[in-house]
Amino acid sequence: MAGGGAHPGRSVTSRALRVLDAFDADHPRLTLSEIAERSGMPLTTAHRLLAELSAWGALVRRPDGRYVVGRRLWDLGLLAPVQAELRQVASPFLLDVHTATRDTVHLAVRDGLDALYVDRVSGRESVPVVSQVGSRLPLHAVGVGKVLLAAAPPEVVEDVLRAPSRQTRHTIVDPVRLARELAEVRRSGAARTSEEMSLGAASVAVPVVVARGGAPTVVAAALGIVVPTHRAERDLPRLVPVLQVAARGIARELARTDEFR
Amino acid sequence: MAGGGAHPGRSVTSRALRVLDAFDADHPRLTLSEIAERSGMPLTTAHRLLAELSAWGALVRRPDGRYVVGRRLWDLGLLAPVQAELRQVASPFLLDVHTATRDTVHLAVRDGLDALYVDRVSGRESVPVVSQVGSRLPLHAVGVGKVLLAAAPPEVVEDVLRAPSRQTRHTIVDPVRLARELAEVRRSGAARTSEEMSLGAASVAVPVVVARGGAPTVVAAALGIVVPTHRAERDLPRLVPVLQVAARGIARELARTDEFR
Repeated sequence: MAGGGAHPGRSVTSRALRVLDAFDADHPRLTLSEIAERSGMPLTTAHRLLAELSAWGALVRRPDGRYVVGRRLWDLGLLAPVQAELRQVASPFLLDVHTATRDTVHLAVRDGLDALYVDRVSGRESVPVVSQVGSRLPLHAVGVGKVLLAAAPPEVVEDVLRAPSRQTRHTIVDPVRLARELAEVRRSGAARTSEEMSLGAASVAVPVVVARGGAPTVVAAALGIVVPTHRAERDLPRLVPVLQVAARGIARELARTDEFR
Repeated sequence: MAGGGAHPGRSVTSRALRVLDAFDADHPRLTLSEIAERSGMPLTTAHRLLAELSAWGALVRRPDGRYVVGRRLWDLGLLAPVQAELRQVASPFLLDVHTATRDTVHLAVRDGLDALYVDRVSGRESVPVVSQVGSRLPLHAVGVGKVLLAAAPPEVVEDVLRAPSRQTRHTIVDPVRLARELAEVRRSGAARTSEEMSLGAASVAVPVVVARGGAPTVVAAALGIVVPTHRAERDLPRLVPVLQVAARGIARELARTDEFR
């Protein structure tokens, strides 16, 4: 990050990216001085980089002087495979599940030790959930996360089991119990949670298993559904096959995309 | 764009952004040499910038050597108001309309002379449409576009009327007829199209009109629905009030957001 020297370009690009780093879900609108402070650079440097990033359309200055992420970056983000390949292929299937159940349906992929929510279909009558598109939640505390963790490389599982964070009083933080549950997920092909991330909400999730000609199958994503706890006992078991049908449909479509061919 | 001189930083940031410019919907996966060619820079420069952009997560290098847009940019793009404020607020209402009709529902905003599609809900049984999230289509050729054009500043209308592009043999390219139609959209509060963008598809759209305490109302977006042409006569008239109810719901929620308060 140090400036100048033999690679002036490197540090300048890094600084521009550090300006973008100042923005996150908790800080979507920032003033010049907030950006300078959050990215640790002088006001004058931040001001110059903001002018360039705004000219290109990465950021937009609002009438109140605060900067927000611009449509140009939104556009570019839509080209990411997670959106252009996975989300677009899966979206009609999520809609099918929602139409049949009226509950909140999620699609997630693993991102490090988190489940990254790629899509969500949620009506206004569905149970309120904390996740939204782009959210990251700890793998061990959510249904889609347990599915993704059960399919993750051993070193990822070890990392999570070392210190599973407590999200509610129901989060499973005992490594032995969690490991047993992951084995059960691998055996049964479905994961359940009950108030482990949000009180009042229970979930079930299944993997999207993509077959690649000859090569081993890949868990490309997890598909899950969230219901109010009082309906969990009655509804979650019957929702597993609903999710499995949709997950197979998604997997079939994905197998045809560039990523898996 | 010229390098070095008094503002070395400016040109370096510009070059990094030019690397990103190489990617678009028709070119989502590019090799190093394609990127260098499309951004008009030497291979060595492109290589160095790609390394920095990849280290940050803006781009990802696939096993086959091609670069794609990374999750980090997707993430950042989700913070854009068009997504974080508009799409998120509107999404359940689009779902309501789709659930009631089973047809493809669109939400779009004006971006220059185009309608930018911000959200779409489309089942697998809906009529196939060319637009997807992030698509831009000419304002005068689509239902949501006519609604947005009818509310646009006079200079935008003039620009479009100067040379409306022909998309199908049914696209209205006569400026006088188009101007008359825009007046009718303003009067009736709804726009219709019939095979003007895609053969076999008809549409109707309404504005999302946001009231701001004291200030003039703003057309923040347009909400539209697409049906097969053979159902247009029977279905489009009864779909207008369905869209209007949803549009009012969206407008009410938007009026509470930071953008309009």
